Amino acid sequence: MGPGPSDIHPSVLAAMAAPTVGHLDPYFLKIMDEVQSMLREVFQTTNHMTMAISGTGSAGMETCVVNLIEPGDRMVVGVNGVFGGRMAEVAERVGAEVTKIERPFGEVFSPEEFAAAIKKSQPKVVGVVHAETSTGARQPLEEIAKIVHDAGALLLVDCVTSLAGIPVEVDRLQIDAAYSGSQKCLGCPPGLSPVTFGPKALEAMDNRKKKVSSWYLDIGLLRNYWGNNRAYHHTAPINMNYALHQALRLVLAEGLETRYARHHLHHSALKAGVNAMGIHYSVAADVSLPMLNSVLIPDGVDDAAVRGQLLNEFGIEIGGGLGPMKGKTWRIGLMGEAAKKSNVLVFLAALEQCLNKQGVKPSPGAGVAAANGVYLA
Amino acid sequence: MGPGPSDIHPSVLAAMAAPTVGHLDPYFLKIMDEVQSMLREVFQTTNHMTMAISGTGSAGMETCVVNLIEPGDRMVVGVNGVFGGRMAEVAERVGAEVTKIERPFGEVFSPEEFAAAIKKSQPKVVGVVHAETSTGARQPLEEIAKIVHDAGALLLVDCVTSLAGIPVEVDRLQIDAAYSGSQKCLGCPPGLSPVTFGPKALEAMDNRKKKVSSWYLDIGLLRNYWGNNRAYHHTAPINMNYALHQALRLVLAEGLETRYARHHLHHSALKAGVNAMGIHYSVAADVSLPMLNSVLIPDGVDDAAVRGQLLNEFGIEIGGGLGPMKGKTWRIGLMGEAAKKSNVLVFLAALEQCLNKQGVKPSPGAGVAAANGVYLA
Repeated sequence: MGPGPSDIHPSVLAAMAAPTVGHLDPYFLKIMDEVQSMLREVFQTTNHMTMAISGTGSAGMETCVVNLIEPGDRMVVGVNGVFGGRMAEVAERVGAEVTKIERPFGEVFSPEEFAAAIKKSQPKVVGVVHAETSTGARQPLEEIAKIVHDAGALLLVDCVTSLAGIPVEVDRLQIDAAYSGSQKCLGCPPGLSPVTFGPKALEAMDNRKKKVSSWYLDIGLLRNYWGNNRAYHHTAPINMNYALHQALRLVLAEGLETRYARHHLHHSALKAGVNAMGIHYSVAADVSLPMLNSVLIPDGVDDAAVRGQLLNEFGIEIGGGLGPMKGKTWRIGLMGEAAKKSNVLVFLAALEQCLNKQGVKPSPGAGVAAANGVYLA
Repeated sequence: MGPGPSDIHPSVLAAMAAPTVGHLDPYFLKIMDEVQSMLREVFQTTNHMTMAISGTGSAGMETCVVNLIEPGDRMVVGVNGVFGGRMAEVAERVGAEVTKIERPFGEVFSPEEFAAAIKKSQPKVVGVVHAETSTGARQPLEEIAKIVHDAGALLLVDCVTSLAGIPVEVDRLQIDAAYSGSQKCLGCPPGLSPVTFGPKALEAMDNRKKKVSSWYLDIGLLRNYWGNNRAYHHTAPINMNYALHQALRLVLAEGLETRYARHHLHHSALKAGVNAMGIHYSVAADVSLPMLNSVLIPDGVDDAAVRGQLLNEFGIEIGGGLGPMKGKTWRIGLMGEAAKKSNVLVFLAALEQCLNKQGVKPSPGAGVAAANGVYLA
């Protein structure tokens, strides 16, 4: 129940343990085709160039940025958490002129804020974090997408934590490039980063003057391996792709809408439970992420002691705050397989014990009762 | 029996399928410590900064190059195969002034060739491929290492295919930086790239004027995660590290010297077998790699048809030639678990069938008989 990696279904672990074949083996090429096809469904896109980068989510972020940006290109990045800050840093390292628009951790941006920055900077690329894993805030995208496109810029979206937990509508919103991670709501171990690129993003890459600074992450080269040529580029992480393949099968067997609803239900129950114990969310209700519940640590409670007790006595991992939220928030994940009744209920019961040990005495049983109230409604 | 990924021991696959814990979980931190400690043994080094990059071998190559090179730095790279060429390309992309010294595919460099290029270019870094996976050639390192160090340059060595199959003596040769892949002689699925950095390499990184172009591969940041601080950088591929941990346990349980001898034995048997069938190696005997046997395809034999028949009828994968060797060579891997009697014998017997189908008629049973001659000696 941390901020990812999330729990893994046994069939995904079993798939990962199948014998390793070669990266150009016809069987593996079929796996790649199916991974691409299933990722398109999850991203809600027909983008041909939809695939899994052979690295974790941050490698996917870097892939998108370094392929879209050339030295001197202007980029606007919304920074309201660690991962927006990281995107700006990655862009600066490859020579982008970055305009950061900033909001305190936990808040989200208005469309007007993006419009003003875009008008001023006339950027090539606008980077937005859809689900800020460091704060639990969901950035509404619809109006921002329109503003970005009206300005002729490319929209790059971080969907690491949102994909397969809340809708990520790549085609409807005309998101030009997006990246995610295997280890959040997709329910696969960490090690792969799904990405998708629309036609305008590919056109921008085709029109580059300079080669991409990273050979490993160069989409121009990766297109020949994941595309029709199947030309050798690097040795793909075979078993990780087996795992992602099976995880995607489970996602689509459940159905995206059902999966989103499940994440929402358990979030509602968890929220009712912690609220009943006197604990408040650190983000506004209308932009709270269902899969990443960021709550304020009650005054006088020892952050590390509670997280240690949860892990050692109950086998429950939750995350601490990142950046300025360190020591101030807990991040409770309900991602993929972990979004289930038994997790919510045992967490609330366990937290009651931990809080009591810290001298905070919530009304006995109130958390579980409130969660059950949601489930029984 | 391809050029990697190699076969995986069942206990490594089982380890990989263990439940995924968090990347800052105390259990995982212990796994990281042990992976680092075991990698030091395999690299024969005391380098503290020895770890596994969260990507495949090419990501390890890129990590070494982009951390050691700043725009305008001079680098000498030996190019006698695909991977030397790749190293030069990676260096050029981050702005190095690269001097390539070239040799036809399958040949190796003399120390004098490196000495001349180094004298002329006065490079910061010299890149050498120890085991050229594309050609099967082993580059002797000892004299080159001395020349590089006498010139005050840093020695970067590609050990992707050599590590754990032939000696890689990082400390004795004072190799400043080296990278490998998990999926060759280490016997782990692809997805991780072991790297090691000596004190002079770290000093060069500390003295950089500009940030590393890649955030994901920045050793300055990774040192805080794999070093003592355990500060969050990216979400490590947890299960891949479980697999590498178990693979390294098997390597060290066998013992490095025993493992090198095993690779050599099965190479000798394979070589005797194919020679007895009238097939010749594409590299000179004194620089043939035991784990990557590159042989010349006999005249009139259809490359793809033979590889297809081996795969479909016998379940044996071998590699085709890369670059200028495409259609000219086969690359037969004997790496890690795959370096064993049964593989050598069934391959020789199967190849006899395939050659007959192609109209080439080696003396019946000659291949297996010659290999058995080596085993019985």
